[in-house]
Amino acid sequence: MGIQKPTISKGTRDFSPIEMSRRNYIFNTIRSVFEKYGYVPIETPAMENLSTLMGKYGEEGDKLLFKILNSGDFLSGVDLEGKEAKKLTTVFCEKGLRYDLTVPFARYVVMHQNELTFPFKRYQIQPVWRADRPQKGRYREFFQCDADTIGSKSLLNEAELVAMTYDVFKALKINVAIKLNNRKILSAIAELVGASEKIIDITVAIDKLDKIGLENVNKELLEKGLTLEMVNKIQPIILLSGSNQEKINQLKSIFAGIEIGLTGISEIESVFSYIRSMNLDCEPELDLTLARGLNYYTGAIFEVKAKDIAMGSISGGGRYDDLTGIFGLKNMSGVGISYGADRIYDVLNELNLFPLQLMSMTKVLFCNFGTAEEQYVLPFVTALRSKNVNCEIYPDNSKLSKQFSYANDKHIPFVVIGGAQEMEEQMVTIKNMETGEQNKVQKELLIQQITSLLHK
Amino acid sequence: MGIQKPTISKGTRDFSPIEMSRRNYIFNTIRSVFEKYGYVPIETPAMENLSTLMGKYGEEGDKLLFKILNSGDFLSGVDLEGKEAKKLTTVFCEKGLRYDLTVPFARYVVMHQNELTFPFKRYQIQPVWRADRPQKGRYREFFQCDADTIGSKSLLNEAELVAMTYDVFKALKINVAIKLNNRKILSAIAELVGASEKIIDITVAIDKLDKIGLENVNKELLEKGLTLEMVNKIQPIILLSGSNQEKINQLKSIFAGIEIGLTGISEIESVFSYIRSMNLDCEPELDLTLARGLNYYTGAIFEVKAKDIAMGSISGGGRYDDLTGIFGLKNMSGVGISYGADRIYDVLNELNLFPLQLMSMTKVLFCNFGTAEEQYVLPFVTALRSKNVNCEIYPDNSKLSKQFSYANDKHIPFVVIGGAQEMEEQMVTIKNMETGEQNKVQKELLIQQITSLLHK
Repeated sequence: MGIQKPTISKGTRDFSPIEMSRRNYIFNTIRSVFEKYGYVPIETPAMENLSTLMGKYGEEGDKLLFKILNSGDFLSGVDLEGKEAKKLTTVFCEKGLRYDLTVPFARYVVMHQNELTFPFKRYQIQPVWRADRPQKGRYREFFQCDADTIGSKSLLNEAELVAMTYDVFKALKINVAIKLNNRKILSAIAELVGASEKIIDITVAIDKLDKIGLENVNKELLEKGLTLEMVNKIQPIILLSGSNQEKINQLKSIFAGIEIGLTGISEIESVFSYIRSMNLDCEPELDLTLARGLNYYTGAIFEVKAKDIAMGSISGGGRYDDLTGIFGLKNMSGVGISYGADRIYDVLNELNLFPLQLMSMTKVLFCNFGTAEEQYVLPFVTALRSKNVNCEIYPDNSKLSKQFSYANDKHIPFVVIGGAQEMEEQMVTIKNMETGEQNKVQKELLIQQITSLLHK
Repeated sequence: MGIQKPTISKGTRDFSPIEMSRRNYIFNTIRSVFEKYGYVPIETPAMENLSTLMGKYGEEGDKLLFKILNSGDFLSGVDLEGKEAKKLTTVFCEKGLRYDLTVPFARYVVMHQNELTFPFKRYQIQPVWRADRPQKGRYREFFQCDADTIGSKSLLNEAELVAMTYDVFKALKINVAIKLNNRKILSAIAELVGASEKIIDITVAIDKLDKIGLENVNKELLEKGLTLEMVNKIQPIILLSGSNQEKINQLKSIFAGIEIGLTGISEIESVFSYIRSMNLDCEPELDLTLARGLNYYTGAIFEVKAKDIAMGSISGGGRYDDLTGIFGLKNMSGVGISYGADRIYDVLNELNLFPLQLMSMTKVLFCNFGTAEEQYVLPFVTALRSKNVNCEIYPDNSKLSKQFSYANDKHIPFVVIGGAQEMEEQMVTIKNMETGEQNKVQKELLIQQITSLLHK
């Protein structure tokens, strides 16, 4: 076989060691906060039967699913005559790659309902795949971190998710604004203006307020067939200002007599009340323009934005009353939130918030001067590892400058030199790679010296 | 849409919370040992271009690759007339799922060679996919944990991998036998009997010694065209017994004049010598029948078996002199080892070696008695979490027996009861779910009590 130029599949990424330790920092932080709130992990396979995935993400979603060709003779018994690609797809393929973590979770809950104790609080951190056109910040393989509570209608769950979200971003040192709304309020707006059938158009339009501005929102509403009178009636609601309580008070009078609106307000009040009881040091903002795209939300909706950087939302979620119904399990209300690992990475990176110590995984490098010196230092390598210190010995007797470069490239803070002279004196030299400082110590003291240097 | 019965794709698995925490225990243990030895993590995408994967795993491997249908109109411009499935596969699909971690690693090294410092010590823990017929213990999605050092010919790398392997299984508390051989010895055997061209047949046959016995090995050798004289000459070598040093001494005289054999012996001696210098508390066994299937090995070969259970190898690896050549980067000798997470799981499970504490992730459950009581206990929930104690509050005011069942099902060791009576007395009750013991304490002492109970 000839030589081939190596390539990577479009829209996918390799993660280098430094990227990995930064990504693991994000995942480990999120994971430990999830567990602090009682969420337990599950994982589902990368491949799902297409029947599980198709029709769950709209027509566009069906197109964006990666489909896996059936093994063996996939043409066997297929009449190709006059068939289009679209029709043949489900003939040639019975499996597809996971598109999000929500539908596999719903399938999981239904299949395992007899083993699960409800309310079931699960988290899931896995990649998902979408055949989107790749562009800056949009990948075909990306990572989601989801936490959901299913099987409880209590609004305490909503409050817990808000508290958890504060904790996640506090741990990551990202200043965030958490926005809260309720789908029922959006329904009430549509009902109030007498255009209940246009709820989707209305929510899609007002959701864009901070992106495109009021004028363009109104323009879009008119284009979608709302009358000027309707638009004027929506106006004061989405422009409501003041504290959360002031907004709530105004909404109460605006929605007087509109039952779904009052229910929505009452739900929001409960969530805020729970949050107050929790003694958190901040409170989410009631944002009446917050809509979020997914149609399965029926109650609370959340969204999180980083305050110190212009970037889309880094987290979002909400309450859904019927996620598992499609798989035959009714009356399973749930509420969940999803954290976008890739966007969080970008925020931490651009704001320079990754801890410095992530750079250095190996703490000590033992230099190599040949066979006799290897024998001299190898017992120290073993001893240091038995103290759980990450260390390595350079495998080849290369020039010292090359070994030092290796240490620098790997951000290894300390190098141990045990050459002919040190052997004769029964000493070793410890070099601090940052300051350049060198210290010769008795070999018996090496382990103790290193561990104390590392704990400084 | 009607209700559909949820199904999972054949040969794949969901991982429940308890399975997840056990799997994470394995992955975290392996990961921390990898890092202790200076290996740093990378990850590659699930999807690779088929050009990267095809032809690397033999004809059978090509068949077992999962291929991904091209997005959009995959039929466009394709002349279907008279085409077979096999030919159309690469027309319809330009991507496939990762089949192992070695080929993606080779691609990674070549693509990133200018950013990497060699020797490059990387580890990679990710799932791989194979369209195998599913059976007990064999899945279509399974997990590999690989560590490789590339860009160094030093035999110290081999010794480090052996030491690391001891550490991994010591940390997991699995008694293992580590077997070591060298491909050059196998070549020397073939040369010695005058059948160099039959080296594959010979190694495949003798590799089966402990499975099928000597008689059947000999039968297979004869069937493959070796003469009785050749078989008789192989006999004493594969039946060599005694200590490693005794075997080595005998081999030296058997292979006198066969250069590749003497090189192999000298390599093995170096590896053993390094291992002795390391002060490990055990030593691998030289096993001259160990061959391992993969043809790219050129030097050392390793294999690990669990001692207390009959199961295939749980780890294996070796030295390869030219892995990246196919992608255009020559002279990159490497050595690596792969740990099979699924088999290790089975070993730990059957030998009952998983730590008990993996069962319980949440440490404290606060019972729920309605709005006023929620307000009473919520500040304790927040306070306990700020001490990094995993705890949760039951979200609904359900029957106490239901809440206790929930705690038992989640293996939560302590339940806190703050009901009307406790509120009045400004107390809380702590219930030990294992012993049933209950203790009423002043509310100010709760956090301290719980943390001390958890550290008992």
